[in-house]
Amino acid sequence: MLNTDQIRYIALDADDTLWMNEPIFVRTQDACREVITKYLDDPNSLDGKLYEYEKKNLRLFGYGIKGFMLSMIETVIELTDGEIHGSDIQQIIDLGKEMLEHPVHLLDTVEESVKSITEHYHLMVITKGDLFDQENKIARSGLGHLFKAVEIVSEKDTATYADVLRRHQIPPDQFLMVGNSLKSDVIPVLELGAQAIHIPFHTTWEHEQVADHRLNGYTYTEIGRLEELASLLGID
Amino acid sequence: MLNTDQIRYIALDADDTLWMNEPIFVRTQDACREVITKYLDDPNSLDGKLYEYEKKNLRLFGYGIKGFMLSMIETVIELTDGEIHGSDIQQIIDLGKEMLEHPVHLLDTVEESVKSITEHYHLMVITKGDLFDQENKIARSGLGHLFKAVEIVSEKDTATYADVLRRHQIPPDQFLMVGNSLKSDVIPVLELGAQAIHIPFHTTWEHEQVADHRLNGYTYTEIGRLEELASLLGID
Repeated sequence: MLNTDQIRYIALDADDTLWMNEPIFVRTQDACREVITKYLDDPNSLDGKLYEYEKKNLRLFGYGIKGFMLSMIETVIELTDGEIHGSDIQQIIDLGKEMLEHPVHLLDTVEESVKSITEHYHLMVITKGDLFDQENKIARSGLGHLFKAVEIVSEKDTATYADVLRRHQIPPDQFLMVGNSLKSDVIPVLELGAQAIHIPFHTTWEHEQVADHRLNGYTYTEIGRLEELASLLGID
Repeated sequence: MLNTDQIRYIALDADDTLWMNEPIFVRTQDACREVITKYLDDPNSLDGKLYEYEKKNLRLFGYGIKGFMLSMIETVIELTDGEIHGSDIQQIIDLGKEMLEHPVHLLDTVEESVKSITEHYHLMVITKGDLFDQENKIARSGLGHLFKAVEIVSEKDTATYADVLRRHQIPPDQFLMVGNSLKSDVIPVLELGAQAIHIPFHTTWEHEQVADHRLNGYTYTEIGRLEELASLLGID
């Protein structure tokens, strides 16, 4: 169960916690499949092959849209035995550029919750990905001025969180991380002795309730929307 | 003339200040030209067109190798009217991947100078570009442990430097920036009332001397190699 008494510092994840992100990738992948349909017997082979390239390229490209674009291009070249026309590759690049310019859609209750939390806590963002793209999204979200700090990191593991907390002189027992990923936002934070809240991205109304879970011997709290955090903190 | 008495904090640029960078881009561009030679009457048209794409894409991609790769691909598609074969585009992607894995070649006197400076000053790196790629290069340089902080930023303008100094609580009059770019490392720093040293990247031995210059009404010092900074600071 969340121990709210000690919390002074709260950090929010960004993609799929503050705003929609994953659906933009899914939609782009669908559009990419359309582009190569004319070359392939089974356009659905895109998904498995693209995932292979993404995994293989992660070590070189890191996370983010530009790496995703390059992986899409490598995938369609392989799937078409190099026969794909340049104009179709240009179309795929244009799809990627649309992702980079995609409007930032804040998730439900995010704006009012962030405004309310920042009045009572040292509030920051810790997000993984491409520096340039994440800075752009923070700016376009209109929320930037509500955060004391924005940390854009290349990986969200225990070492990264330890480094962020050290640099900001935040005692782990006063720190709460909130995000949609168990792997990136919850587990590494619990390992540091800090607290974490999980907000699964694909939450249906039925599931929007507070529940405590155990994972790897640690306890974390799951909520349905960011506004429930304000209730838990008693500031709503 | 450099006022050394007040300096407590020194920040170094990375690309083409600590290690070679620009020549890797030049060499890759040459190799890209080779790849498309068979399609074009004038393969040299690559340079102008690529520069156009890089400039146009900067707003979306920011600085870094992945954006450079995507700009190369767009350029060769346009120059070949889309007729370039997928296998040749894959070759261009492979050239970009080689850039990302390129060994980090420290410039002359960098290692010993960094070791000596860090013993006497709060030493950090401020570098522009892709977060993932720059972190990798710092790690591979073997110098990472000699810096109190590494700041990877998406743009090096006066606002960025003001933000870095504020976050690290560094008074501008105690701050010295050292780098190879007048635009990114010198001018914005002088505008903040801090000091700056320019180390031009293509320095010949003849020019390796300390000289004071004036620019936009500000004074900065030019040196030939990083070791001359140690002399100026009286720590050699």
